[in-house]
Amino acid sequence: MTTISTIGLDADDTLWESEVHFVDVEDRFRALIARYDPSRDIQEHLLAVEQRNLEVFGYGVKSFTLSMIETAIQLTDGAVHADDVHRIVEWGKEMMHHPVALLPGVRDTVDALRDEYQLVIITKGDLLHQEAKVAQSGLADLVDGVEVVSEKDASSYRRVLQRHDVDAQQFVMVGNSVRSDVLPVLEIGGRAIHIPAGSTWQYELDHHGTPETHGYETLDNITELPRMLSQWS
Amino acid sequence: MTTISTIGLDADDTLWESEVHFVDVEDRFRALIARYDPSRDIQEHLLAVEQRNLEVFGYGVKSFTLSMIETAIQLTDGAVHADDVHRIVEWGKEMMHHPVALLPGVRDTVDALRDEYQLVIITKGDLLHQEAKVAQSGLADLVDGVEVVSEKDASSYRRVLQRHDVDAQQFVMVGNSVRSDVLPVLEIGGRAIHIPAGSTWQYELDHHGTPETHGYETLDNITELPRMLSQWS
Repeated sequence: MTTISTIGLDADDTLWESEVHFVDVEDRFRALIARYDPSRDIQEHLLAVEQRNLEVFGYGVKSFTLSMIETAIQLTDGAVHADDVHRIVEWGKEMMHHPVALLPGVRDTVDALRDEYQLVIITKGDLLHQEAKVAQSGLADLVDGVEVVSEKDASSYRRVLQRHDVDAQQFVMVGNSVRSDVLPVLEIGGRAIHIPAGSTWQYELDHHGTPETHGYETLDNITELPRMLSQWS
Repeated sequence: MTTISTIGLDADDTLWESEVHFVDVEDRFRALIARYDPSRDIQEHLLAVEQRNLEVFGYGVKSFTLSMIETAIQLTDGAVHADDVHRIVEWGKEMMHHPVALLPGVRDTVDALRDEYQLVIITKGDLLHQEAKVAQSGLADLVDGVEVVSEKDASSYRRVLQRHDVDAQQFVMVGNSVRSDVLPVLEIGGRAIHIPAGSTWQYELDHHGTPETHGYETLDNITELPRMLSQWS
């Protein structure tokens, strides 16, 4: 087994909380729409609009905000008030400004790994927002690179590894999404460790990967990462 | 004078048309708002909202779309109809999908330069949109790198040059914005060539750089670039 030289670290919900802010705004969004029509399945409709818009607007808060606006117009049959649309835009701004809260043990774990491994944060979403979060996290000086990609698929992982001059066999990706952090990395011949988050976006749960069928590891907590990696070498 | 090894190429309105699509949508936006209140200075108000939102939402079409929505709500005192808000969201999608039209002479010029220089497209805005435009432009295989940055300031140019292992003295940036493509590059000790575009966003015109005071070159057309560079070496 080749030695691991480089660890890819997912950011949102692996290094810091993110989904909880989306869930919070979605709760407010559901309450807002329910005032117009309590009978609609708001969550399902929003997810469908989000998924359709991913292709055109991509991931992240701005895309999510535009999808909420579109969903609000559709579910209220155009009755949504401008004040409520404005409220949704303000929620988007609030999310962009939300302070970064590192998950427990992240800083110590990153600190413990950085001498032995090349560490690269690999994250998708709004470029500006992700860069701002990395800067605010205090982790920027502890890692060797930050890669914001528009999609986490096999080809973007290949590009990132090429950029950092790493063979897939020497690479392990660590993250909370089997769909985005695990399966595409296995596809290019790398290894992956799944650390489930307390709350995960429905979209990321849409996959058929299991540790048994696909051959990846699972950890309960990022603090267990150094021990697992030391067993591999 | 050190020899130039690397050329940075701005993308929007240097390699392909972009501002013209914003102007077109802004025209439609003005017509839409004027139906509610023809007395307001729509363009000035939109620019002010855009500038304020740059800090939180960044550059690009999604940010612009959210700024139009916010402006529409403000300028109509909340009277804007949901149908019109929806229209604005659709304009945003239309802009994301707009086919890439290379400016005249771009392809031949890039082709002429690529053997002699390292070429890097350096652009700001939506990550997904910029990547899609590079892919569609047919230029991806002709350049050595594509860097989408969240802001074109001295520190992001420094990062890009570091990434490509280039000294600022060996670097020249080519673009249509003195504010974004010229002044920050001069600040870090590089050279810059300004190629004014037919139409330029008001925001980019807010600077006090001149070729005489700041020492940069100006060209009417990108096709003149190879000759200017050959005079430098």
